[in-house]
Amino acid sequence: MGYKDIYELFKNRIHEGAFNPGERVPSIRNLAEELGVAKRTVETAYDILIGEGYLISRGPKGTIVNPDLHIDLAPRKEAPTPFEDSDLRKIIDLRDTNGLFRLGVPSLDEFPYKKWLLLCGRVARSMTVADMAHPPVMGYQPLREAIANYLNISRGVTCSLAQIYITSGYKSCLRLILQAISLSKDKVVFEDPGYFFAHKLLKRIVPNLHYVPVDSQGVIVDYLEKHHKDAKFLITTPSHQSPLTVSLSLPRRHKMLEWARKNDVWIIEDDYDGEFHFTKNVIPALKSLDTSDRVIYTGTFSKTIMPSLRTAYIVVPKELVAKFRETTEITETGLALLPQKILASFISEGHFFKHLKRMRSLYKSRRKLVFDAINRIYGDYFDLNLQDGGMHIVALLKRSTQDIKLSDIWQSHNLQVFPLSIWHAQNQKRYGLVIGYTNIKSEEEALSALRLPYKETIQLLSE
Amino acid sequence: MGYKDIYELFKNRIHEGAFNPGERVPSIRNLAEELGVAKRTVETAYDILIGEGYLISRGPKGTIVNPDLHIDLAPRKEAPTPFEDSDLRKIIDLRDTNGLFRLGVPSLDEFPYKKWLLLCGRVARSMTVADMAHPPVMGYQPLREAIANYLNISRGVTCSLAQIYITSGYKSCLRLILQAISLSKDKVVFEDPGYFFAHKLLKRIVPNLHYVPVDSQGVIVDYLEKHHKDAKFLITTPSHQSPLTVSLSLPRRHKMLEWARKNDVWIIEDDYDGEFHFTKNVIPALKSLDTSDRVIYTGTFSKTIMPSLRTAYIVVPKELVAKFRETTEITETGLALLPQKILASFISEGHFFKHLKRMRSLYKSRRKLVFDAINRIYGDYFDLNLQDGGMHIVALLKRSTQDIKLSDIWQSHNLQVFPLSIWHAQNQKRYGLVIGYTNIKSEEEALSALRLPYKETIQLLSE
Repeated sequence: MGYKDIYELFKNRIHEGAFNPGERVPSIRNLAEELGVAKRTVETAYDILIGEGYLISRGPKGTIVNPDLHIDLAPRKEAPTPFEDSDLRKIIDLRDTNGLFRLGVPSLDEFPYKKWLLLCGRVARSMTVADMAHPPVMGYQPLREAIANYLNISRGVTCSLAQIYITSGYKSCLRLILQAISLSKDKVVFEDPGYFFAHKLLKRIVPNLHYVPVDSQGVIVDYLEKHHKDAKFLITTPSHQSPLTVSLSLPRRHKMLEWARKNDVWIIEDDYDGEFHFTKNVIPALKSLDTSDRVIYTGTFSKTIMPSLRTAYIVVPKELVAKFRETTEITETGLALLPQKILASFISEGHFFKHLKRMRSLYKSRRKLVFDAINRIYGDYFDLNLQDGGMHIVALLKRSTQDIKLSDIWQSHNLQVFPLSIWHAQNQKRYGLVIGYTNIKSEEEALSALRLPYKETIQLLSE
Repeated sequence: MGYKDIYELFKNRIHEGAFNPGERVPSIRNLAEELGVAKRTVETAYDILIGEGYLISRGPKGTIVNPDLHIDLAPRKEAPTPFEDSDLRKIIDLRDTNGLFRLGVPSLDEFPYKKWLLLCGRVARSMTVADMAHPPVMGYQPLREAIANYLNISRGVTCSLAQIYITSGYKSCLRLILQAISLSKDKVVFEDPGYFFAHKLLKRIVPNLHYVPVDSQGVIVDYLEKHHKDAKFLITTPSHQSPLTVSLSLPRRHKMLEWARKNDVWIIEDDYDGEFHFTKNVIPALKSLDTSDRVIYTGTFSKTIMPSLRTAYIVVPKELVAKFRETTEITETGLALLPQKILASFISEGHFFKHLKRMRSLYKSRRKLVFDAINRIYGDYFDLNLQDGGMHIVALLKRSTQDIKLSDIWQSHNLQVFPLSIWHAQNQKRYGLVIGYTNIKSEEEALSALRLPYKETIQLLSE
């Protein structure tokens, strides 16, 4: 490798925007050693780059990319790759774009930043040598303890530390559970309509996927008894059905557990926002009624803390703990220790309880104001039903089936709503909009946002 | 739920060791709300717990578990679950136990803590609202850029940001690659002997697994040409073969790439410790010679920074980028943002280069002193060959095949060596010990540690 190669390499990478203006480049000595060349070779390359204005030498303070460099940098943001599945591409673009009514994101403005950042700093600075080694694949023990305590106290789920398994998100929970204990011939039953991302994942990894319909009391358990006695897994959202937000009624809960017990079905309970229930009666998790240990409970901190924490968990039934540990030691890696330590402190020092409580009352009022605003402007066109919980509102179209077109219109005004029909797997679709309310701060904000697509909406829905 | 239930719940969880002495319990108001009961109910339960000495009220500063509580707490450390695969159980126990000669762990004593902790604190405190949302599934963009730069400069791997995919470890890389692009009928070829954990994973997820033998020049490429023209994947460690530490010779590198090109094979290059090469000639990655883009390159920060960071990466060939992104959007979750931000700063601010350089010379001298110490004490019994690189030494037994018994003996003296034979898949095993040297600080330490099992060793090897 000669000085010209090094010159070319740096020039190209600066043009690609890989080194930012002002960023430090490796020292001559280090780079020479990295590349196994003489120092003189690197020096020559750097001299040319400095001469051409790409780099600036600051003497003993090192060499940096010229902060005043004005070249046509390649675009810093990556262009999205086209996907074969265009629905998926669309929904991911929506998730990753800032806009109003975004789904599944907590109220970012009301997060207790100061407390969190102090905690982050404190935990980060307290890392010890022992904290460098492999963290346990099951998760950091104090975090697993804190979660077990939380579930026992707040969700009515009786469980011990040994049953808690930390993952990087709900999709990981689902993938892991099926990978650990399902066979490819196993019949897996999923809700219809059901959570978009879970459905995409299941279609990809489950050869034998079936559905169960949902009505105003949640999953129709009679249907399970009639058509799915041979099921091995049911994946369900009993607290607030995703996306319809209805809660599974108590009689159906008992019936579902009985069906699972009789037929040796594993129920995977996705309790993704069970914490946010706004009526007097807190609904404990389905798992809390599960005396035969047929429910594999999953929860996440994406909704209760923040998505970028990428932390969720599984409560593994006792009889599966050994198998689960062995499988995951083979297939999984464990997760970075630092975020687990921060989260463990946040929970065990009482901040999590307090935060949930604040969010519950905040969400209650934000939900009400968005609901009222929709009703006021579009009351003639939507059937609106306020359920007991959930982090979004479902607005069913009264007469139209054009929810895809409608959401395209709203999205063009930067309102990130989703069409309900694409959540369905089979026929008998419902049509409407799924609207996140958590980041709407006032009635005025809701009204003025909702008015943006007014004309086009009325025109479409009056066709 | 009455006060007795709450009383029982807390008493049990304190006895189980789930709440530590001195730890804060939820406030009466918060707990009452969590449980949906009257404050009076919680108060009564707490009063009894205080009366019995389990809790202590500190007035407005909250209620804590009595710090002087002396009860027989359930053991805090979880008992290891028995596994069906006893080799796996053993190897995991070794990995998770502190001892000398541990494999795959960097020199913990020489890590630049101060710099790292300062950086952690700084990055943690600089989190913004935008940092709360879902991080990209492919990984945090500045980290991917920093890795692309590093690979271009230090490993000779020409790649762009778009090709870099962040994972939580090498096992995740392997699982993800096979999940994204392999079919169950595909023939997958693995080195024999080969990396223990990769082998366990492959046996679990690949139905059609085959092997290629290794000699003193690395993988025998003639064997690939003769027996594996129909392969779809080869998983290999060209820089320093795992576990034998030999480097794949240059003629074989070209031949292997040619074999892959002709037969449309994907080569998965595991460059787990390519950074630690101690002779004059730095060996660039196999990927750097790969003009037909048949190599899927993987690297990890477990060896170069610390295992608890749980960060590795894949360089996805250009033609696979779109497919890879779509698959991972469906099956993966992305990883916590904070560690990715810290690592990105560590690399782009030049600390990583500097650290690698220091570690290279440190490892060179530690390797030499451990090598010499083994030679001095057990030179008659082992064939020792110092290869150009690697983070461990392979000591082949000259006459015995008893490496499992021998490592049991050494392990009983807290020397965490592994028997070489269990790394093999088929017959034609080699026998010896695999010895990590990275945490041995002096010749005296090496000698006194190696002398511990002397008598038993000589007795066994003279049988």
